[in-house]
Amino acid sequence: MREVAIVGVGMTRWGELWEKSLRDIYVETALLAMEDAGVDRIDSMIVGCMSSGLFVGQEHLGSVLADSLGAAPVPASRVESACASGGLAVRTGFMEVASGMSDIVLVSGVEKMTDVDGGDATYALGTAADQEYECYHGITFPGLYAMMARAYMHQYGLTREELAAVAVKNHENGSKNPLAQFPMKVTIEQVIGSVMVADPLRILDCSPITDGAAAMILCPLDQAKKISKNSPVKIIGSGHATDSIAYHSREDLTYLEAVAKAAERAYKMAGGGPETIDAVEVHDCFTIAEILAIEALGLVERGKGRTAASSGLTAIGGKIPVNPSGGLKSKGHPVGATGVAQVIELTKQLRGECGDRQVKNARRALAQNMGGSGGSSIVHILEVG
Amino acid sequence: MREVAIVGVGMTRWGELWEKSLRDIYVETALLAMEDAGVDRIDSMIVGCMSSGLFVGQEHLGSVLADSLGAAPVPASRVESACASGGLAVRTGFMEVASGMSDIVLVSGVEKMTDVDGGDATYALGTAADQEYECYHGITFPGLYAMMARAYMHQYGLTREELAAVAVKNHENGSKNPLAQFPMKVTIEQVIGSVMVADPLRILDCSPITDGAAAMILCPLDQAKKISKNSPVKIIGSGHATDSIAYHSREDLTYLEAVAKAAERAYKMAGGGPETIDAVEVHDCFTIAEILAIEALGLVERGKGRTAASSGLTAIGGKIPVNPSGGLKSKGHPVGATGVAQVIELTKQLRGECGDRQVKNARRALAQNMGGSGGSSIVHILEVG
Repeated sequence: MREVAIVGVGMTRWGELWEKSLRDIYVETALLAMEDAGVDRIDSMIVGCMSSGLFVGQEHLGSVLADSLGAAPVPASRVESACASGGLAVRTGFMEVASGMSDIVLVSGVEKMTDVDGGDATYALGTAADQEYECYHGITFPGLYAMMARAYMHQYGLTREELAAVAVKNHENGSKNPLAQFPMKVTIEQVIGSVMVADPLRILDCSPITDGAAAMILCPLDQAKKISKNSPVKIIGSGHATDSIAYHSREDLTYLEAVAKAAERAYKMAGGGPETIDAVEVHDCFTIAEILAIEALGLVERGKGRTAASSGLTAIGGKIPVNPSGGLKSKGHPVGATGVAQVIELTKQLRGECGDRQVKNARRALAQNMGGSGGSSIVHILEVG
Repeated sequence: MREVAIVGVGMTRWGELWEKSLRDIYVETALLAMEDAGVDRIDSMIVGCMSSGLFVGQEHLGSVLADSLGAAPVPASRVESACASGGLAVRTGFMEVASGMSDIVLVSGVEKMTDVDGGDATYALGTAADQEYECYHGITFPGLYAMMARAYMHQYGLTREELAAVAVKNHENGSKNPLAQFPMKVTIEQVIGSVMVADPLRILDCSPITDGAAAMILCPLDQAKKISKNSPVKIIGSGHATDSIAYHSREDLTYLEAVAKAAERAYKMAGGGPETIDAVEVHDCFTIAEILAIEALGLVERGKGRTAASSGLTAIGGKIPVNPSGGLKSKGHPVGATGVAQVIELTKQLRGECGDRQVKNARRALAQNMGGSGGSSIVHILEVG
């Protein structure tokens, strides 16, 4: 298996991009990644997208985006694992380069979510849950994560304030990220006083509906110096796992088994566990998700995720910086793009390009992307090349 | 790059499977493939599916199908390239095994198309074309392929009878395939007299709406004997290419450039051109598509595809047997499953298990899968292991 490096990244500011189409936001970031890497050709394209069919009425994304980029006839694939589609794109691109099939691979994630109304967006997002056994009974994602929060509160004594501290930290970090959709800082009181969505989760516990794309260039590590002027960042671990798609089928309602399995595989491949990680991006689609993710990743003991944000442990200057980008919470969550953006943030952290939100001396970093209520998860570990 | 072998295949009869869900048809064929290979574990799953979001309101297929199969926590990915999603699944699984990431990979294709009404199915299929520049103006796939047929008739003098001969041949072959959706034989007169869909294409020129799945087991060639009792079939070439998604943007309206490029890549990898191929499955979503595909694959000269079926050249006993399975036309076309089923047919041909429709002495075979009106194409070349 060939070693694989990231040599270019591209992102624009995420948000409600009414004036732009899915094609527009894809092409913008793809060109930025190619420019950053300094490459003028690609051998292949992988696009992560959850549901362009339901959001914009367009499947066959490989063809339409290769065409829009002017890259046809390159091979172009679309991959999907709900909100972990971006992470899956990174993993698929990694395997394509590792196998020797292609040298320069453009890996992207994209989602255009605001071209449908709120009800249709809720329906589209619900297709990441078990349509027959969950959605037909009226559950939506805020409801699923609210049940997780309630179960965790019951088992470990999580308080409303501790939950809010996750949002406060991520908005604090996002305020230093010029690409974040919601860069405003928030207080514990504002989170607790915001409008109720699904008890106990309030609107400031939830990641937003977002339009956005993210792109990167992968190549074999031993060709990185020849292909790009940038210092390469190595992908040294890739783990992917599934769990029962329906939340009610899980053995333990307060543990994300797919995250734990994906992490175990990524740590094994990287040759080092959670103690080796200097910076982390996790899938905080809701505040409770960050708490459960850092426990499943082994970054804190079970039940200790509760106080990780309120104690400062996961702040940028803390022992285990989590979501320096602002996370899904503040940066936004265009579902198929999120997993790619997480890896981009960590690439920039490892290159030392993050300015006010830079994690000091970061040498090894971990990204955790998740589909649905934990039915799938993908974990990548990166290292300075 | 490790060499890759197919060691197990599974399919059931395709059709309007009202009594079964997408999960049911997936699991049935996955278990058949595992049984055929004689394996009791898999390391990873790849699922090709075009639009489960629009057809059954379910994305996150990796998770839901790993769960249904009882295979979680294995990594499970869904890939999409419209009607070439099955071919893309084969290619993605091939790269996963070739890279060394996984040893035993379950590659499937699935589509459940009859749970929506005809109008919604037409809309869903239309998302494989350019939604903004084609579908908004009222075009559907029969219309796009009708334009191809008209352009080819104009340029090369194709007659209505020659076009009908493709359907006659494929239904003749399909009558020998117990898994075909429409195994009845048809005559030239019946095709020409069938109901008009989009001039000059009539209903018997069109592949049907189908529910179906198909599955296979891949592993490294050097472990094939240890893993399975079956004689391995090697994947020796894999080519993938894109073209402009919109038909009107193509330079040549009678040539499938993406098919030609994908074939060129696959032939190069296999170390031999069209003259080395003993049996072929092509993407005959409409009769005209088979004619254009065999020309782009270099199996016949440009303009000569016209008479390939009527002259007997592409019959099972002909010089270049094309679609011995009955093709999409007779076997059915559950869009995401088709590309996998093509490779399954050729695997069985190379194993000599095809009974009445067996191509004699087949040693090397080619499968060509296509997305949309030719916006993407994937070509695989197989050989007796």
